[in-house]
Amino acid sequence: MESLAELSLQFSQLSMFPFFDVAHYWASVMSAREQPGALDVAKRSPMACWFSAMLYCFGGGILSSILLAEPPVSFLSNGTNILLASVVWYLVYYSSADLFYSFSCILPVRIIVSAMKEVTRTWKVLAGVTHADSHYKDAWLVMITIGWARAAGGGLISNFEQLVRGVWKPESNELLKMSFPVKVSLAGAVLFTLQKTQHLPISRNNLMLVYTLFLITIKVQMMLTRSSASPFQPIEAVVGRLLFGCQQAETGVKEKGPSTPDAKGKPSKQPEPSSAEKSESAKSKGAKKSE
Amino acid sequence: MESLAELSLQFSQLSMFPFFDVAHYWASVMSAREQPGALDVAKRSPMACWFSAMLYCFGGGILSSILLAEPPVSFLSNGTNILLASVVWYLVYYSSADLFYSFSCILPVRIIVSAMKEVTRTWKVLAGVTHADSHYKDAWLVMITIGWARAAGGGLISNFEQLVRGVWKPESNELLKMSFPVKVSLAGAVLFTLQKTQHLPISRNNLMLVYTLFLITIKVQMMLTRSSASPFQPIEAVVGRLLFGCQQAETGVKEKGPSTPDAKGKPSKQPEPSSAEKSESAKSKGAKKSE
Amino acid sequence: MESLAELSLQFSQLSMFPFFDVAHYWASVMSAREQPGALDVAKRSPMACWFSAMLYCFGGGILSSILLAEPPVSFLSNGTNILLASVVWYLVYYSSADLFYSFSCILPVRIIVSAMKEVTRTWKVLAGVTHADSHYKDAWLVMITIGWARAAGGGLISNFEQLVRGVWKPESNELLKMSFPVKVSLAGAVLFTLQKTQHLPISRNNLMLVYTLFLITIKVQMMLTRSSASPFQPIEAVVGRLLFGCQQAETGVKEKGPSTPDAKGKPSKQPEPSSAEKSESAKSKGAKKSE
Repeated sequence: MESLAELSLQFSQLSMFPFFDVAHYWASVMSAREQPGALDVAKRSPMACWFSAMLYCFGGGILSSILLAEPPVSFLSNGTNILLASVVWYLVYYSSADLFYSFSCILPVRIIVSAMKEVTRTWKVLAGVTHADSHYKDAWLVMITIGWARAAGGGLISNFEQLVRGVWKPESNELLKMSFPVKVSLAGAVLFTLQKTQHLPISRNNLMLVYTLFLITIKVQMMLTRSSASPFQPIEAVVGRLLFGCQQAETGVKEKGPSTPDAKGKPSKQPEPSSAEKSESAKSKGAKKSE
Repeated sequence: MESLAELSLQFSQLSMFPFFDVAHYWASVMSAREQPGALDVAKRSPMACWFSAMLYCFGGGILSSILLAEPPVSFLSNGTNILLASVVWYLVYYSSADLFYSFSCILPVRIIVSAMKEVTRTWKVLAGVTHADSHYKDAWLVMITIGWARAAGGGLISNFEQLVRGVWKPESNELLKMSFPVKVSLAGAVLFTLQKTQHLPISRNNLMLVYTLFLITIKVQMMLTRSSASPFQPIEAVVGRLLFGCQQAETGVKEKGPSTPDAKGKPSKQPEPSSAEKSESAKSKGAKKSE
Repeated sequence: MESLAELSLQFSQLSMFPFFDVAHYWASVMSAREQPGALDVAKRSPMACWFSAMLYCFGGGILSSILLAEPPVSFLSNGTNILLASVVWYLVYYSSADLFYSFSCILPVRIIVSAMKEVTRTWKVLAGVTHADSHYKDAWLVMITIGWARAAGGGLISNFEQLVRGVWKPESNELLKMSFPVKVSLAGAVLFTLQKTQHLPISRNNLMLVYTLFLITIKVQMMLTRSSASPFQPIEAVVGRLLFGCQQAETGVKEKGPSTPDAKGKPSKQPEPSSAEKSESAKSKGAKKSE
């Protein structure tokens, strides 16, 4: 038990800079590049492409700045991080013969990068909740909102990120149809807020460790089984039916949770066009469908 | 005369919380629910539905916060008001057998709720003008803008409220075709600014009373006669013709003001599909037309 | 040499108010009026038309305020400038028999007004860079961004300016296809930032003079030759090919730079429908094409 406390303490003192930050930029820019039409924009206007990639990398900080009336440009004042993100952006989009992108698409590489990115999510949720708490004492809704915005900002501002690339899909947004990263960030923001307001009998360090392990496990499982089904679906189906009279229940049952990845209804053994495209988050999938 | 001074003093000390605030949330959420497609969103995504309803309820505060570079999330720090608004939202959208909505649609209930909501408009215009005055000394344009934004914010940000629900109607906005609540809020902001800068020979308390009585009279009259014609139309027609060479004049004459509600041209005695739909503000009507 | 130093000192002490400011409003409102559909909006809703014109005139200040979390309404607190801009707006849109607009379209008038507007650009870039420097010490990316936003704000927020008029063109924005004023503002922001951080061996006053002369020369040349080709095209073509593998190179060669204004490919001597329409900036042209 003592060793667990020590482990979680050491884990909570992990520095995000530079390796985890780079992994976050890497995964974010990969995700930006896999949007439909992104490569075309990269050829036509490197400027718009760069700005769109920065919105993917720093969207959470920008959104939480706007919500707290802090300067949204302040992310530009951290020159080192911008430089790292820009180098990653350049390599992913413009490396000769697309070597870097092909390398990034190898499944083990992608899994490691994605897992490291998920670690930064914990740090962001916590930073957001703590920052909001220092502004508004005991305003738990503000704490949840800022923690959520910090960790899932890129998704929440996707409509405006698309606008930079000349794409406009008003019929879809992350509130109408939440992707898994956005949902899990919201859940994290709620948990860390409860911990902060002392409604959750767990130490902060332990919660960080448990939440991160949960994030990584689910993410890796989703990438390996090529499933986009969220572990929240059973809960959502029950809540939706009880509180809001939703009829989503049937589809929820049909799609099945990730606990049965090899269920008959899910032909995950069939040949797939590309591991990269399949393992993309639900958001990217939704985007492709609506095209 | 003394009794009038006393009455207006007592009126100006009226507390908006909780009854008038609830009436405002009630009328706002009803208006949100009557938007085309709103019920469909309520089934698909309670989250987007709740956020859209909050934009209806707190849109004025959010918009004026943004304009003054104050945190737009601060409305979330008032837990009690959010709770009240959320309860109203839940009842209007998801009460069993739609009992609450049916009850809200009874004309006398609706008239009382709408009248109480109009009272909150006076308080909002005044709060906005006073708040702007404390930031910018004697900047009357800022005072008008913030007073207007605070009182009519939900309408002014309607494009972005629609975006939350996956709807996008760029061809219509409240500046291109102002609805009556937006116009009357602008008029109120001008009046209270003139009073504040001592260009209007009337005490603040008296202006509050007179403006509120005007708001309620017009609103009730519009609901009873199911007319959406604004009392500003004659003035607008004259100003438009003199200053801007507008050709709106003819339509302005045809539609007639509310001073002749039973004019021949206006078949207000004919059977109507639903009192609720008809008594909706011009904004909702415009939205329906453009579908 | 001493006289040059004296000249640049005197030039740098030039007051923008009132003549250069009025020229800026004049050129901006002319440009607003020449947008497709603008006159129709002017007839339907003077309010939306006025607000759209103000976004053209004060867009840079508004955008840089938002980016630095300062109140975006503060431009309204300068009553005199708003009054000047509004008078210009009224004259350009609603003067009887369109006398003022016809007068503004005379080529020499237009050239003088445009040249004076370019002078204000230098002052805006410098003000933006200096203002950002006072907020963020040595954050050169922030300095470039704010200098750029201040000088080219109207262009950068064009999507939202269009929304005010009920127009929505998500497929085009100033990042995807930069117009010449936006490009030259960016170049200016980079130069003044380099000067400020002492990486450019030139005094501030001299840089102001040189940059302004460059702006005016190019602008007048573009208006006289009715060309929208940018002097940056050769550089862009090389950078694009070397760094980003762009295929723009061929079109860049075909269109030719402004150094050969009378090239065979450019029938600038042919009768043109209207000097005003032709001499419009690339941005307006792009807008027309995409209709």
